[in-house]
Amino acid sequence: MKEIRAIIRPNKLPRLRAALREMPGFPGMTVSKVEGFGAPSEHAPHNIREELTDYSAKVRIEIITPDDKVDEIVRRIVSIACTGQTGDGLLWVVPVDRAVFINKTTVGSPQG
Amino acid sequence: MKEIRAIIRPNKLPRLRAALREMPGFPGMTVSKVEGFGAPSEHAPHNIREELTDYSAKVRIEIITPDDKVDEIVRRIVSIACTGQTGDGLLWVVPVDRAVFINKTTVGSPQG
Amino acid sequence: MKEIRAIIRPNKLPRLRAALREMPGFPGMTVSKVEGFGAPSEHAPHNIREELTDYSAKVRIEIITPDDKVDEIVRRIVSIACTGQTGDGLLWVVPVDRAVFINKTTVGSPQG
Repeated sequence: MKEIRAIIRPNKLPRLRAALREMPGFPGMTVSKVEGFGAPSEHAPHNIREELTDYSAKVRIEIITPDDKVDEIVRRIVSIACTGQTGDGLLWVVPVDRAVFINKTTVGSPQG
Repeated sequence: MKEIRAIIRPNKLPRLRAALREMPGFPGMTVSKVEGFGAPSEHAPHNIREELTDYSAKVRIEIITPDDKVDEIVRRIVSIACTGQTGDGLLWVVPVDRAVFINKTTVGSPQG
Repeated sequence: MKEIRAIIRPNKLPRLRAALREMPGFPGMTVSKVEGFGAPSEHAPHNIREELTDYSAKVRIEIITPDDKVDEIVRRIVSIACTGQTGDGLLWVVPVDRAVFINKTTVGSPQG
């Protein structure tokens, strides 16, 4: 199993969600709001607020997936999220030692 | 060291917190709000809002722990978080190269 | 590539951001709000609200960086974030299998 994490522009989320949903065997994803702060040398502020704060709103995606789906998911995220401009975000893949889908477990309570 | 990450139902957090607190040597945890978006084939909407948005509110837990506590923490999380229904969330364990408890360090400031 | 993750006190963020910005080749970072819940044995509540809830507001930092910058980034985070008190947070480094800066990719859309 792998964890795919991506930071993308918020306005790309609806299309990304549609592109992933139609992928056979898509394992689901988790989404949260974050703030991105780019490398200084690459930063090109687009408005006064961003210039003053250096932050821009981003969305973080997290997907736990079998190894054989990583390439396809990465390809879909990149193809949707890429505008070619600074601020497109990034994506990375982290090894996973163990993954558990909680509703499929049958573990007794340690509390009795 | 390992990082245990879990996505659970928000209403499970109080019991989970109690169950982890009473575990000897529990190393602490970080909690944040996220939105889950399940695999399409497994999705069973429970109400109109969820059906329209496909998202459901979840809580993300992160725990950095020595290897010998992983099994016990995983067992406690799963036993509290599992209802057996779709939407229970998931849990995964990631290898950690290095972990630093910041208040126990004595590092000089690079700013002088 | 490595992922450096840190949980720090929110009031340390402005100084940390300044210290990282002035580092040559700093790769950028992502910031989000989280809640920390310390190990029970180390917990020393500072006010009634914290005592009742056991949570304290924290900021999570995530940085994807080449291996050769890890030590310098860790040193800067720790030196800014450390007060020596419980609640300073923690930092950990996770291996990364693959990282993609999305604006530098040229991938065709799978949607045509």
